[in-house]
Parts: sequence; structure tokens; C-alpha cells
Amino acid sequence: MNYLWRSDNADTDEDIMRFLAGDDVVLDRELLPYDIAATTAHAEGLARIGIFNDAELEQVSQALQAIAEDFASGALVLDQRFEDGHSALESWLCERVGDLGARIHTGRSRNDQVLVATRLYLRDALDHLVHLCRLSAETCLQQAGQYRGVPMAGYTHLQRAVVSTVEVWFAGYAEAFIDDAMIARATREWINANPLGTAAGFGVNLDLDREYTTEALGFDRLQLNPAYTQNSRGKFEIQALTALSQALLDVRRLAWDLSLFTTAEFGSVTLPEAYTTGSSIMPNKRNPDVVELLRAACATVDGAITEINSVLSLPGGYHRDLQATKGPTLRAFHRGLAALGLLPALLSEVRFDHDKLREAIEPAMYATDRAIELAAKGVAFRDAYHEVKKSVTDGETRTPEDSIAARISAGAAGNPRLDILQQRLAALK
Amino acid sequence: MNYLWRSDNADTDEDIMRFLAGDDVVLDRELLPYDIAATTAHAEGLARIGIFNDAELEQVSQALQAIAEDFASGALVLDQRFEDGHSALESWLCERVGDLGARIHTGRSRNDQVLVATRLYLRDALDHLVHLCRLSAETCLQQAGQYRGVPMAGYTHLQRAVVSTVEVWFAGYAEAFIDDAMIARATREWINANPLGTAAGFGVNLDLDREYTTEALGFDRLQLNPAYTQNSRGKFEIQALTALSQALLDVRRLAWDLSLFTTAEFGSVTLPEAYTTGSSIMPNKRNPDVVELLRAACATVDGAITEINSVLSLPGGYHRDLQATKGPTLRAFHRGLAALGLLPALLSEVRFDHDKLREAIEPAMYATDRAIELAAKGVAFRDAYHEVKKSVTDGETRTPEDSIAARISAGAAGNPRLDILQQRLAALK
Amino acid sequence: MNYLWRSDNADTDEDIMRFLAGDDVVLDRELLPYDIAATTAHAEGLARIGIFNDAELEQVSQALQAIAEDFASGALVLDQRFEDGHSALESWLCERVGDLGARIHTGRSRNDQVLVATRLYLRDALDHLVHLCRLSAETCLQQAGQYRGVPMAGYTHLQRAVVSTVEVWFAGYAEAFIDDAMIARATREWINANPLGTAAGFGVNLDLDREYTTEALGFDRLQLNPAYTQNSRGKFEIQALTALSQALLDVRRLAWDLSLFTTAEFGSVTLPEAYTTGSSIMPNKRNPDVVELLRAACATVDGAITEINSVLSLPGGYHRDLQATKGPTLRAFHRGLAALGLLPALLSEVRFDHDKLREAIEPAMYATDRAIELAAKGVAFRDAYHEVKKSVTDGETRTPEDSIAARISAGAAGNPRLDILQQRLAALK
Amino acid sequence: MNYLWRSDNADTDEDIMRFLAGDDVVLDRELLPYDIAATTAHAEGLARIGIFNDAELEQVSQALQAIAEDFASGALVLDQRFEDGHSALESWLCERVGDLGARIHTGRSRNDQVLVATRLYLRDALDHLVHLCRLSAETCLQQAGQYRGVPMAGYTHLQRAVVSTVEVWFAGYAEAFIDDAMIARATREWINANPLGTAAGFGVNLDLDREYTTEALGFDRLQLNPAYTQNSRGKFEIQALTALSQALLDVRRLAWDLSLFTTAEFGSVTLPEAYTTGSSIMPNKRNPDVVELLRAACATVDGAITEINSVLSLPGGYHRDLQATKGPTLRAFHRGLAALGLLPALLSEVRFDHDKLREAIEPAMYATDRAIELAAKGVAFRDAYHEVKKSVTDGETRTPEDSIAARISAGAAGNPRLDILQQRLAALK
Repeated sequence: MNYLWRSDNADTDEDIMRFLAGDDVVLDRELLPYDIAATTAHAEGLARIGIFNDAELEQVSQALQAIAEDFASGALVLDQRFEDGHSALESWLCERVGDLGARIHTGRSRNDQVLVATRLYLRDALDHLVHLCRLSAETCLQQAGQYRGVPMAGYTHLQRAVVSTVEVWFAGYAEAFIDDAMIARATREWINANPLGTAAGFGVNLDLDREYTTEALGFDRLQLNPAYTQNSRGKFEIQALTALSQALLDVRRLAWDLSLFTTAEFGSVTLPEAYTTGSSIMPNKRNPDVVELLRAACATVDGAITEINSVLSLPGGYHRDLQATKGPTLRAFHRGLAALGLLPALLSEVRFDHDKLREAIEPAMYATDRAIELAAKGVAFRDAYHEVKKSVTDGETRTPEDSIAARISAGAAGNPRLDILQQRLAALK
Repeated sequence: MNYLWRSDNADTDEDIMRFLAGDDVVLDRELLPYDIAATTAHAEGLARIGIFNDAELEQVSQALQAIAEDFASGALVLDQRFEDGHSALESWLCERVGDLGARIHTGRSRNDQVLVATRLYLRDALDHLVHLCRLSAETCLQQAGQYRGVPMAGYTHLQRAVVSTVEVWFAGYAEAFIDDAMIARATREWINANPLGTAAGFGVNLDLDREYTTEALGFDRLQLNPAYTQNSRGKFEIQALTALSQALLDVRRLAWDLSLFTTAEFGSVTLPEAYTTGSSIMPNKRNPDVVELLRAACATVDGAITEINSVLSLPGGYHRDLQATKGPTLRAFHRGLAALGLLPALLSEVRFDHDKLREAIEPAMYATDRAIELAAKGVAFRDAYHEVKKSVTDGETRTPEDSIAARISAGAAGNPRLDILQQRLAALK
Repeated sequence: MNYLWRSDNADTDEDIMRFLAGDDVVLDRELLPYDIAATTAHAEGLARIGIFNDAELEQVSQALQAIAEDFASGALVLDQRFEDGHSALESWLCERVGDLGARIHTGRSRNDQVLVATRLYLRDALDHLVHLCRLSAETCLQQAGQYRGVPMAGYTHLQRAVVSTVEVWFAGYAEAFIDDAMIARATREWINANPLGTAAGFGVNLDLDREYTTEALGFDRLQLNPAYTQNSRGKFEIQALTALSQALLDVRRLAWDLSLFTTAEFGSVTLPEAYTTGSSIMPNKRNPDVVELLRAACATVDGAITEINSVLSLPGGYHRDLQATKGPTLRAFHRGLAALGLLPALLSEVRFDHDKLREAIEPAMYATDRAIELAAKGVAFRDAYHEVKKSVTDGETRTPEDSIAARISAGAAGNPRLDILQQRLAALK
Repeated sequence: MNYLWRSDNADTDEDIMRFLAGDDVVLDRELLPYDIAATTAHAEGLARIGIFNDAELEQVSQALQAIAEDFASGALVLDQRFEDGHSALESWLCERVGDLGARIHTGRSRNDQVLVATRLYLRDALDHLVHLCRLSAETCLQQAGQYRGVPMAGYTHLQRAVVSTVEVWFAGYAEAFIDDAMIARATREWINANPLGTAAGFGVNLDLDREYTTEALGFDRLQLNPAYTQNSRGKFEIQALTALSQALLDVRRLAWDLSLFTTAEFGSVTLPEAYTTGSSIMPNKRNPDVVELLRAACATVDGAITEINSVLSLPGGYHRDLQATKGPTLRAFHRGLAALGLLPALLSEVRFDHDKLREAIEPAMYATDRAIELAAKGVAFRDAYHEVKKSVTDGETRTPEDSIAARISAGAAGNPRLDILQQRLAALK
């Protein structure tokens, strides 16, 4: 293996080296494209202060682009021969442009190099998160429209409570995913600050044009202070992961609903066969495995946040511990975004069974309506409540449709105001 | 005890009742003022649809205000006689305005009642968080100015690395707390949605004027869908707690620094005596207990987030499990804001010892400067690095001040750009 | 307030003092009886090396016993006037036996004082945990006997899978709680080591008879090394909390089952009314709140473990951060044991509905039986599986009882071997 | 890909399949040897009830052994062509012994197959954990002997407190790792229960000889109840991970100590060069990266426990969510055991600098000794404390050696009782 910081050929203990490297080269496969983009901007910045002339910059930039293409195509492979992606990149660059490659690390450290690559990765991941939340919200709104006014039992404590509609059920998840997209976007704006140019936490004795790289890489602001850039490692990751967890909390709840609704006992929802699997021993089974793994996806993010938090109890400045924030971040985004990616198709293909839904609606579920009607007529609500409680269904003749039609407060089954959600969704574009 | 939902005097098992109540009445002491505010708006909303006439509304509103005052003064005490704060409020109201009190629950459920009170609480807590982060940032910037250009050793891996300044150290935390205020504010905007009027998750058969209560309570938008309002319980809490944890992650790191700097070995910082305590057995000790408990404050939030996350694995709709999100939220904000509240005074009173700081600066700490100088003169950085490594201090004559002055990339010791941070801070007002 | 370590009357900042104290005096109410027991043993130990003569020891011991009684009766109250329980105890002792009380701290520090009190508390808590797990296991076995051979649908993925029995369901939880009692007992043995006599982490220059206090307090071994005793703070708490979480993981799963089985859709279980509550708005509801809060109890322990873990990232020796391990430990045991305490009565009172259970059994649930029968006759299982899959119910005439009777592998419905569980349970006594 | 449960060639959505598979085949590489061992025992069990005759069993057993060897040598590779390790194993077996392979799944499900393989894996991992803890304890005791009586400053709150010794420091970690080995062993005993033979959670209609496989696989007891075996998934993993975390909590603390002691400021410890690395930008640096990554290892386990806990909020019976417990378990053991594996060599090679250690000892550190001496002479300790506090060093002439020699309570510097720890360590063999 080839180490940037080693000038001799001293023997090394391979166990130690393996422990130090951890999964870095594997994880860095996700970061490399971002590292290349940031390295290109860094090279341009170096050219602006005379470290490269125009021809040299051209050579370096082209080599970096070629490396990006070769990496994407598989011609270049990031594997255990390298300490990490940063070393590999410098090494590949030197192979292609010789001495120019050896100049690329001027004015930067692996510390700001990994920070800027990770920041770009997180930004992309959050953009993708926003996109997927919007897609899910859109699908939910379409389905809400499809199931306009279709009655279903509403539950609290898993007990039948009040008549609701499939429309309200879908619209609820639409609003959830809209909110998720909103916080993901706000998080994306917050993290979009440029750490490049702060080196190992102390800046450098060069007049690096940090405003230039900020603009070139599409950052909204400079992450100014070099001590802070180091101290922020893990911090931005936690915030990004929390945005991811917001969406996955909703996925989990939705998956729970589907898991229940697809039981024989509830029996109100059918999943497309592609989302179910068989059993290795029970010939009779079709299991909603996809839904269950969607439900579990949130746990990966919970674990990642705990792991990073546990690492971060450190004094200021860089410590190698911070390497351990990379694995949980990448793993959680990988799994979480994969889960969210399956959702729009799944949501558009679930089928609610109108008849089965109606079977679950019982007369006692109008009791709240009755109590509120009495209240509206002037009976104190607490008295109305006890009055109705005495005989919850006596003489009740209303239908589910009656109950729904009367539920007119904004957002409720009789007045779901999908238009408001459509507007919010449109505003996110 | 008096239960809203009980019409008879059935025997109850006191163990069960105690388990059900948990710490609710104690926790609800923090929520009660918000519950009163939301109840007032709800009463106004009921008046708009004829449930109260003007005179009745006046009576109810005055009674609610009087209850708020009596609660604040201690004349009314929320204790184990009540199931929770909501029951207590309805009961106190009935004592004062009789039958009008029994009408207050028209069109709402404890489900949206606790949601709206919690939302108002979180909004206030986040406002306070923004305020405290701004105060800490301000203090850090003042101190950065006080210690302009004062050299201190910069560390990575807790090893002496490169010359830095006390100014950069303070400015780093200033930028951190500015970022913390930014994300706290973004979170505050995100959560500022009105759940009142969605009752138990199904809306009601009344034409509640939800736009009115939204405006009256200062919300930015309606939390529209009644299914979603229930499903969002815990979700907004986690996001708010994460904003708090961002600030406390920085407090933890800062406390770690102070904990190290106040050791005899580093010896570069002195704390005011009020922030230290003695030992019960060792007469010679003064211990930085406050700093250590500031460091520990983050853990309370980590624990709270894990606890809430663990509760939230549930299908849609209200479940009593959700009650268990209240304790960790209130405890974590209570402790976290208390920690942050101590910080500005502490930061303004810590003293750095110029001489002691200078003692820690060694000639080898200029090695990076030298390598970069060579690189600026055209030596490939990787060669310059190995050249300098051969003899890190040979013939080195530069002073800490030289090293600092040359560190001119934006944010670095020679060009800290406090003005940029001042502007960002001002923009937060 | 009165501080052990303060000799003057210097002004103190009350905010700081409140932050330092945290909830200590409230939390210490649980620890005080253990502190008194350990202090009594410490006094006896001091007498053995001449710090107290026999008469003095008698006085001190009687005073300590009287304090214990007065504290239990409420005559003495631990409140905000004291910094913590340790200070209160020394102060109360001095009030009663004057100068003898001022000698009690000879050879100890609050560091080993809180360690030994916490250790005794944890030991008691684990004993109680063992006891409650055994009670639940016992109840489950009784109920298994009551429901011998009663068929119920067995589920995987919440889908109907194979015929099982209520007996197997109860016996499964019996075995779970037996395992929980086993690990709680092993944990109790592991933590039962005496830290008293190690002072602030350095031992003392007295010939303390640590073997004596070890025996007097019922410890199994000396926690020998004074550096380790300090470093073990939080460590033993985490292990004890994990034992608690094992039981609560089973409570959570059991509560989930009951939550499902009591839905209208499954409808197979009825809870006693005392375990359900009403709604503040819906007159028709009876909700299984107790079951839901039992399900949530595990989260408190999860949160506590995360919180303590987050605190414990520290170098060796005592740090004030460690105070922050106390709150989560006590809160989690308080809540967790309360939850477990409700379980035996609840388990003995749930009622399974034989008819409703039988309705859920479908012919397709014999498919696995059929495939295995074919396999037993020599058809390769993989072929038998595909054979049966073609037509899962063709010509099937077996009854649930047939299927159960044939399930004869040890532990299965036809051969549940409750005797083995009875033996394990008896061995735990 | 080839699925056990699929009889047709229906199109499948590759995204869904990839999501379902997750990292299973990669993770299963660690489980496969255990799966083979359990499959061999299962085959032997099947032979005992006539599913295989002797010759067939011989064929199957030899094929399984050959597969194990080919897998170990790399001739067989578990990769994305297979759904998981279980499918691969059945498929490889069928390739070698045709129809006999198709019989291997008789009487078992993948559910008990993965349970038994995981259980065997955990048992091995815990055995390895015990072994590594014992090695570290042994090394610590050797080093304690090497540094017998060598004075060093003892710290509380990172402040110099009382004279201690390097011997006590090492002995403290020895005792810690002995305790860790004890709880790892107790955990190993607890989890050593055989789930094989419970199929998908309902047992089977065959007279499986579960006692036989229990003995053949070295289990101490039967995990009897089939419902419980399913419900225990994740539960045993958490307990095993907690045992691992106990050791890593001590590693973290030890790494923290070394991280401090190797700073220029403390300067009391030197690490072998192999445990340090250079910087990519600062030619002057040697950083204690190994120590820092040892410190971070605990976080992986914290994250894993949180992740598994979050998954486990489920009703009884198998759910696909449970697949998500595998990744965190294997990753955490992989990383945690690697960290522990580096420790013995590191501990045996760290060097403490006697002179530097002595420099840190100040006269005020005898104050506690003085107060206790006064107390031993009859002054009330509280008075002695205040007396000494007035002038902590007046006329003090004692040396570090004096202070150490007088610290005679068991375990303290003057009487460290390494013999007790040696005995406990020996008892663990």
C-alpha cells in the first residue's frame, strides 16, 4: 500500500493498517466523484494564485475528468491497494500528469478534502431526498383523488373510532412527505457551506480564493473558520440524517398501516405480487416482505445517529475518531434512499377493497358526531358526551357518507382541502 | 381523582392509575400556560361559530386568564389530584364559569389539545434556543476581538500541529453558534403549523374556523390533515431536539476544550471561581464541575431522541404510547437550555494566559508553513512535504506572529474575517 | 444551602448552583436508604480501626437507623435545601450526634459513597426484576395450562401461517421471562462487588477493613482497584439496564400481541375493564391504554442506555459528568419495574375467545404439515413443497386438533413440554 | 437469481429484489461456516428419524464438509447470484448430492436455520471476546508488575488530585478486563440455547430429535418453545453486543487516557511508532491514530444496539424486519473484536516516562493524606478537612513514595493486591 505521509519503507504491522483503514476504500467509492469535483475546483483555485498556469490547469482538469469517467466505467477500481480514496486520487493523477499531480495537495489537507467531498455528497443526498419525498407526496395525492370520499374506519389505539376515508389516509401521508421535503430542503440550505480552503483546521499561508471555490462548487456560503470546519465534522451529518429520518418515520408508520391492512383480519389492502415473497417451508404463504423492510429502514438511521453522536464527544480539532462518522452516514443514506425510492411505485399500486372497508364501520362510530351535534345545539359538550355514552347507537340511522359529509372542518373527511396540499407541493418545485 | 371520560364511580386499581398517569401532571406544569393560550384561541373560535356568545366568551377568556395568573403565582397547583393538565384546566374552568366550562371541549379532543400545547411549547423553546445561541455567538465574537492575534498552539489529534490564535478559537465557536441559531430558526419555522381543530384525528362535524386559530396563535400554516396531525406526534419533537443537540454538540466540544485547557498540564485557561467546586475529601481541589456538566448536557438530548424514536414505531392514529414522548422532550429542553443559559457569562469570564499559551508553541509547528512556501515557489507539494520532513526545524527563525500573519486564506489566523460573522449574526435578528 | 466542601460564605451564583444540583436531591430520595445502609457498614468498619469506640459506634448506628425511619415516615425530607443526599445525611447525622457525625466521612469520599449506594440500589432492583420475571413466567405457565391445546392461528409476517395454540403462545412468554430472570440474576451476581473503601479513586492512608464491609453489605467480592471503581461508574448501570431491557423487550412484544388481538378485526382477546380507559371526545371508546404504555416502557430503557453511553466517553478518574448517569438509571428502573409489576395480574386476567380463534384458522394453514408428511414418506422436501404449493388445500380434511396433535417435535403444540419450563422456573428459586 | 420459494419464472423487479436482499450475501459470508455446522447436525438428526439412511447421511456430511473447505479456500464464493447464504448452501448441496440436497430442508425453516447459525456465531464471538479480555488483563497485570510503585499523579476532573502509581493504573484496567471477561462468559452461557428444530415458529409434525442436535452442537439447553425462538431474534444479539460494549467502554476510557498522556503537555507516555501515522499536510506530525480509532470502536456497538432495538418493536412471530438485526450485529462484532485484538500488543509496548510522571506531582496532592492523618488522630474529619484546606502544603515534607506507602487500604497504591486479580484471572481459564 502507498501512504501519502510515508517517505520510507518501514515495516508496518498489517493488522494495524487494516484496522486503520477500516472500510475506507469501500466507503470512499461513494465519495470519489465528489472528491474529484472538489479537486477540480481546488485546481482552478490554485491556478488563480499561480500554482498552475493555464496549460497545466487544463491538463489537470482533463486528467481529473478522465479519472471520473474511468472510475464510473469500472476501468479504475478503488480497492484495498489504496489507503483511502484521497490517496488513490492523488496517485492516479500523478500517473497521468506526473509532477502536476504532486502539486495538487498544495494548500489543502485531507481534512478539508474529505469535508468538502462529504458536504457535496450530503447535498446531493438531500436533493435526492427532497425529490423522493415529493414523488411520494404526489403519488399520495393522486391516490387520494382516486379514492375520493371512500369510507374507511378510523382508528385510535387500533380500536375502531370514527368514520374516516381512504382519501384522508392518503392525504395525511401526502402532507407528511411534503413536510419532509420542506425540512430536507431547509437542511440542504443549511449545510451548503464550503469548508474547502481551511486545510487541517488552521488555514494556510497562501491567498486561496475561497470565494471562487464556493461559487464554483455551488455553495451558498463560506464555512469560514478553519477551527469550526473541523469541529463541524459529524455535526452536519447528524442534521442531514435527521432529515432522512423524518421521511423514514413516515415510511415506518405507513408500512405499519399496510402491514396491518394486509392481514387476513383487516383484509382491506392488497399489495402487488412483486412486493411479496414466499416462505422456504410454508407453501401457502405470500408475505409482505418489502413493506416490512421499509418499516425497518428507519432503524438504520437511528443507529447511525447514535453511532455518530457517540463518536463526537471530543475536544476541538481533528481526531482520527472522526473517520468513524463516515460509515454510518453513507450506509444510512444508501439504505434510506433505497427504501424511499421504492415507495412511489408501491403507493400507486396498493389497492383498497371498498367492501371490506365498509364492513369495518359500526354504528357506534357515529357517537362522536352525535355528541358534537348535541353540543352544537347548546348542550354542554361534557353533558352531551355522557348522554351519548349511555346509549351510543340508539336510533342511529346515519350512513358513513352522512358522517363524512358533515365532517367539514378544514382537512377533515368532508372537506379535505387537497388543493392546499397541491399548492404546497407545487411551491416545493 | 377525576376523569373526563368516566361517568360512574367504578373501583379502579390505583397501581394501574398511577402507571397510566406517569409523570403527566408534573410534566404538564410546563405545558399548562400553552394549553391555556390554545384553549383561549379555541374558545374564540367556538364563539365565531356560535357555541359561545360574546358575553360567554368574555367570561371564559377572563377565567382562563385568571387561571393562568393563579397558576403562575402558585395559587393553583397541578398535582396528583388530576389525571393530567388538560383535565385540571377543564375542571378549574368549570369551577369558575360552570356550564360554560363544560362546553369548552366542543370540537376538540385531548389529542389535538396536547398537540397544540406542545407545538407552542416547542416554538417557544426554539425561540429561546435561537436567542441563547445568538448570545453565545456574540460573546465569542467579543472575546475573539479581545484576544486578537494572540498566538496559541493549534492541535490535531491532541498533538501540537500548527500555530493558531485564541481569536480563531473563539471565532470558531461564534460561527458554530451562528449556524446553530440558523438551524434552530429553520426548525422553528418548520414546526410552526397549527394542529388545533383536528380533534382525535378525524376532524369534526362543525365548521371550526381553523384559519382563525392559526392566526390567533401565530402559526405560519395549518397542519391540515387530521390523520397527519396525530402521526406527527413525536416527529416534530425529534426535529426540535435535533436543533437543540446541534447547539449542545458545540457546547460539548467547547467544554472539552476548557476541560483540557484548565488542566495543570495545559494550564492555559482559568475559570472564574463560581464555576468550580471543591471536593468532599480532598482539601486541595477546585474542580471545573460546571464545565463537565455542560459537556454532559448533550447526552440528555441523545437519550431523549433515542427514547422517542423507540416509542414511535407504531401504525397510524393515536396510541397511548405517544404520551411517552412528552417526558424526554421536556426534560431534554429543560436541561439543554439551562446549560446554554450558563454559557454566555462563562465565555465572557474565561481567561487565557498569554505566556502559558506561548510556551506550547514549538518550532516544528512551522513545518507546514515551510512546505507550503516551497510549494508556492514551484516545488511540487508532495516533494516539498518530504523535503521539510527530513529536517522540520532546520534554520527556522520565524516567530508565531510571522506564521499567523502569513496565514491569509479567508478565515485563517492572519485574516479571520470576523466581519463576515458579525454580518451573519446581525442577519439573525 | 450547605456545602461539604465550602468553608466560607462566598456569594454563589444561584443559577450555577441549580445547574450543578440538577435533580440530585430528588433522585437521591431513592438512593438514601442504601446510602444509610452503606454508611452504617462504613461506621462499623471505622470502629474496627479505632475511629469510633463501641459506644460511639452504637450512637452513630442508632442515629442512622433513626434517620432511616424518619426518612421513611416523611419526618425528614430530602429537598432543595441540600446539595445532595450525601450532604443531607452527614448534616442530619451531625444534628443528632454532633462531632461523631463530623467523623463519618473519615476514609471515604462522596465518590465511593455514591458508588456503593448505587450498587446496593442496582442489586435490589435486579432482585426485584428477577422476582417479577418469575411471577410473569409463573402466570404464563398457569395460563398455558388453562388453555391447553386450544387452537389459534399462528402468524408470521402478521399473515396466517400454521395452526398453533394459546398454550404455545403463553408458554413462549413463560420461557422468555425465565430467560430474563436468568440473565437478571447473572447480572446481579456480576455487579455484586464492593466499591466502598476506594475513596476518590486512590484508596486512603488508613487500614480500612474492606473485607468486613464487603461481607456486612452482602457483596460477593471486593471491587478492588480504586481507579477501576471510578471508571466503572455507568458501566454497571448499563449492564443492569440491559437486563431490564431484556424483560421489557418481551413485555413490548407481548403488549404488541395483545394490542392486535384486542382489535375488532382480530377480536380474540378481551382485557379486564380496569386495563382500559375512555376517550375525552369519543363516547364509544374503550382503549387498551395500559397495554400501550407497557409497550412504551422499553423505550425509557433504550433512551437511558444511550444517554449513559453518551456521557461515558471520558478519560479515567471521576468527572462530574458521571452525575448524569444517575437520572436515567433511576428513571428507567422506576418505570420499567412498574410496568413489569402490572404484568402478572394482567396476564392472569386476559381472556382468549375460543370461537373467534377458531374462525381464523383456514385450510391453507395445513400446507406445511402436508409438505412435511410427503417429505417423511421419502419425497425430497423441495419437491414436496412445490407439489403442495400447486394446490394448497386440495382434499384436505384435517382439523386444527389433528394438525396440533401431529406437531410432536419438542416444544411444539403437540408436545409443549411445560414440564421443562416448570423445572427451569423452580431452579431459579 | 434462484429463489427457494419460487416455482415459476415470473418477472421480478430488480430494484425490489436488491432492496430485499440488502447486504445479505455479504453478511452471510460470516455466518456460512456456522450454517454448515448446524446443517450437518440437522442432517444427522434427520438420519435418526429415517429421512436419510447411513449412506445418504455420509454423502451429505461429506458434501457439507467439502463445501466448507471450498468456501474457506475461496473456490466457492457467496455473492449476488444467491438470495442469501441459506439458498446458496442448499443449492451447492444439490449440485453435489442431487436429490439428497433437496431433502435437507425437511423439518426446518430458514427461520430456525438463521437463528441457529447466528447463535453459534455469537457463541464463538463471545468466546473470542473472553479470550481477548483475558489477554488484555494479563498484559495489564504484567505491566503493573513492571511499573511496581512508580508514582504518577492521580486525577479527578482531569485535575491533579492525589499521588497514585502506574501500577494502580494498569491494575485498574486489568480488573476491568477481568470483569468484562466474566460478563462475556455469563452471557455466552445464557445465549447457549438451541433454537434448531422449531422451524418457522410452530415446530413440525416430525419427531425431530432436538436433544441430539443440542448436544451435537454443544448447546447447554434447548430453546424449547417455537414461538419464543422467533421472538428471541435480536434479543440475544443485544445481550451479546452489550457484553462487547462492556469491554469497549474500558477500551474507550483507556484510549482516552493514552490520548491525553501522549500529548506534549502531559508527555508521560510514548507509543510505538507502528501505532502512529503521519499527516498529509503537516510534515512534523506523528498522530496516535490507532488509539483514537480504538476509542471510537465503542460507538459502533452503541449504534448497533440502538438500531436493533429500533427494529424490534414488533408483535410476536417472524417478520422480515428481523433481517435488519444481522448487519449491525456482525459489523459491531467485526469492528469491536478487531479493536480488542490490537490491545494486548499495544499495552505491552506503551512506555511511561518516570521523570515526566514525577514532574506532575505537587505538594498539594498530599492534602488528603494530611486530613486523614489528622482524622486518624481523633480530629473530626470535617474539621481536619477545613484545617488542611487553610494551608494545603504548609511544612509538608513527604515524598511521593511516603504517600504511596501509607495508602494501605486493599487495592490502593501501597497495597495493590495484584494477587487477588491474578487469582480471578486464573479462575477464568
